[in-house]
Amino acid sequence: MLTLDKIYHASKVLKDVIHQTSIVKASAIDADCELYLKPECLQLTGSFKLRGSGYKISQLTDEEKARGVIACSAGNHAQGVALAATKYGIKSLICLPDGAPISKVEATKSFGAEVRMVKGVYDDAYAEACRLRDEHNYTFIHPFDDENVIAGQGTIGLEIMNEMSDVDAVVVSIGGGGLISGVACAIKHLNPNVKVYGVQAEGAPSMYNSIKENKIICLDKASTIADGIQVKEPGKLTYEYVQKYVDDIVTVSDDEISTAILTLIEKQKMVAEGAGAAPLAAVLFNKLPVKGKKVVCIVSGGNIDVTILNRVIKRGLITSGRQQTLCIQLDDKPGQLLGVSSIIAEHGGNVISVHHERASEGEITDCILRIVLETKNFEHVREISAALTNAGFRII
Amino acid sequence: MLTLDKIYHASKVLKDVIHQTSIVKASAIDADCELYLKPECLQLTGSFKLRGSGYKISQLTDEEKARGVIACSAGNHAQGVALAATKYGIKSLICLPDGAPISKVEATKSFGAEVRMVKGVYDDAYAEACRLRDEHNYTFIHPFDDENVIAGQGTIGLEIMNEMSDVDAVVVSIGGGGLISGVACAIKHLNPNVKVYGVQAEGAPSMYNSIKENKIICLDKASTIADGIQVKEPGKLTYEYVQKYVDDIVTVSDDEISTAILTLIEKQKMVAEGAGAAPLAAVLFNKLPVKGKKVVCIVSGGNIDVTILNRVIKRGLITSGRQQTLCIQLDDKPGQLLGVSSIIAEHGGNVISVHHERASEGEITDCILRIVLETKNFEHVREISAALTNAGFRII
Repeated sequence: MLTLDKIYHASKVLKDVIHQTSIVKASAIDADCELYLKPECLQLTGSFKLRGSGYKISQLTDEEKARGVIACSAGNHAQGVALAATKYGIKSLICLPDGAPISKVEATKSFGAEVRMVKGVYDDAYAEACRLRDEHNYTFIHPFDDENVIAGQGTIGLEIMNEMSDVDAVVVSIGGGGLISGVACAIKHLNPNVKVYGVQAEGAPSMYNSIKENKIICLDKASTIADGIQVKEPGKLTYEYVQKYVDDIVTVSDDEISTAILTLIEKQKMVAEGAGAAPLAAVLFNKLPVKGKKVVCIVSGGNIDVTILNRVIKRGLITSGRQQTLCIQLDDKPGQLLGVSSIIAEHGGNVISVHHERASEGEITDCILRIVLETKNFEHVREISAALTNAGFRII
Repeated sequence: MLTLDKIYHASKVLKDVIHQTSIVKASAIDADCELYLKPECLQLTGSFKLRGSGYKISQLTDEEKARGVIACSAGNHAQGVALAATKYGIKSLICLPDGAPISKVEATKSFGAEVRMVKGVYDDAYAEACRLRDEHNYTFIHPFDDENVIAGQGTIGLEIMNEMSDVDAVVVSIGGGGLISGVACAIKHLNPNVKVYGVQAEGAPSMYNSIKENKIICLDKASTIADGIQVKEPGKLTYEYVQKYVDDIVTVSDDEISTAILTLIEKQKMVAEGAGAAPLAAVLFNKLPVKGKKVVCIVSGGNIDVTILNRVIKRGLITSGRQQTLCIQLDDKPGQLLGVSSIIAEHGGNVISVHHERASEGEITDCILRIVLETKNFEHVREISAALTNAGFRII
């Protein structure tokens, strides 16, 4: 049974294992509430996961420790288990799907784990981890559906209540549900009036659907840029705790998550991964009844792959008018590219790429010019477009 | 005269104006020294500049305050003056070149300043600010060459010595030289054994050249992604203080700065602008004799424009083998694109863009396929390239 006492115990045990993160006021972010962030992206290993795996491993019997631990993860849990095992001086073996970003593989190794790359996706790595556990009698560390793991994550709830006893609401992302189970349990025992809200990605609403339908649902597929919460099925324990302690769950889209990631970068100089930014996305896009309230969003992790960060930033550039693609229909005669170039240069547009080709449709004399520009804002885009139109070019 | 007393006074005055940033250990970053960061990117307004402008404005006479202040800046100084003026309840007018990123313009307005956009570059905005000062008798706030501004920046030196009295070296970026003048003055008075190193961008080595040649040099041009330290000429005061207090100055390239920015993002979850990452670049690329030492890099600011961040990340993707462009020479016959696509898919490469055209050189039957891929690392790139070559495709 998960009790407040156990979470307090975890907190005491973890004192020498984790880094205590401090709540920061998000004063630079425009929101309808008084907004604070609990930056677990600044936790050792770059996510909260070290708390759960750290407490879990600390509570193993000597015999279980001696056998060594095994875990399966595409990301943060891997790093958490690796570092926790190393801190307790025991061996760890982590199975990773071979599609895992090299940065996460390298980080896991650097924390002292042995890494086994498994051909396929997460489920294949999971199957291999189970096979190895059975074969070698390793101790398996589940990423979320385990009382001690949940108690470890719950220490974040204690810290929030300790740092800010007058908080009105805490917003937490949900993948398997370990983090929110622990946090909600801690908070509701300390003050049942504090609201605890869960946030899932629209493309992976496993807990959301399960709670709505009153039974554990396994999704056919889960797809979101927030890979940390891309989980097809909630845990048995976590499903129960979420039912019992969580006030509501909402979902956010990948675009909303991207905006939240970019907001954290630009306004708070903080790097969050998709799962870490999802709670802020829910606040920014008014999915929660927190207007005027004192709200803490848990930024659960910051291990965003640079490839995804690249996509997020690109999307941010486009949605804020700082990158614009113009398709212009040209007559197929000399001097047309020069005409377009000089108008763009005159108005301060910075050309990133140009693609010029004969059109396959339309008039036989037509050409299409596809030009990607760095612009200042939408006003600037309109200015350049108008100048081109005025000069007789057709933007299509 | 700049004295330690004045810097202590600034520290006292600024207590209610600034946010006290805490040194963080950069334990996730591989370096040859024991590395710490002083994260002024987390300062209010996103940079240290608030310290100098805050102290300067606090020390104005009532008459000077009543006239209102004017400043010229393409970035951080604008925001610092705007917020400081608002905190002291006085009017501010900021001249910005019209090429300034919209995000900085909006931020400056949001801190309460009136903004005047000036056609042209920084120098044009400066000329306009001087004209307006003369016309309206505004009080001018210089970005660096002012004793009180320098004293304000020097409070960072006090904080470092206070937080970490056994530090061996402090590394500081240099634009006009205000930050390093104040920091070095504070540190050398408290402990002359602590080394203070300056870092400039290779493309804007104004202080570096001036110190080497023993006279103030004005560069013909200054160009770097670190816009915060893109300054053509040091100040008269700052030149003197750097000569007196700074142990050495080194330069770093834009590529080195980009790597440092990306390292801070990936390892420390911290967003720095180019000027803020330059000291770390100097450490990472072994430009300084700090092996095994206890080193604090001042991360002076985090106001990086998303357009520049986009370029930095793209560069990071390419230099780490996570994005690769392949040019493949194809026979101009059906099925060739299919062949290439299926090999790439089989080996887990993710296609971002494809450009397929008849070649203008070479055999008349040739086509060029230019394909941009997301890859895992250089090993993965080699694997895909080898598979294509083995299947008979010519990579050019």
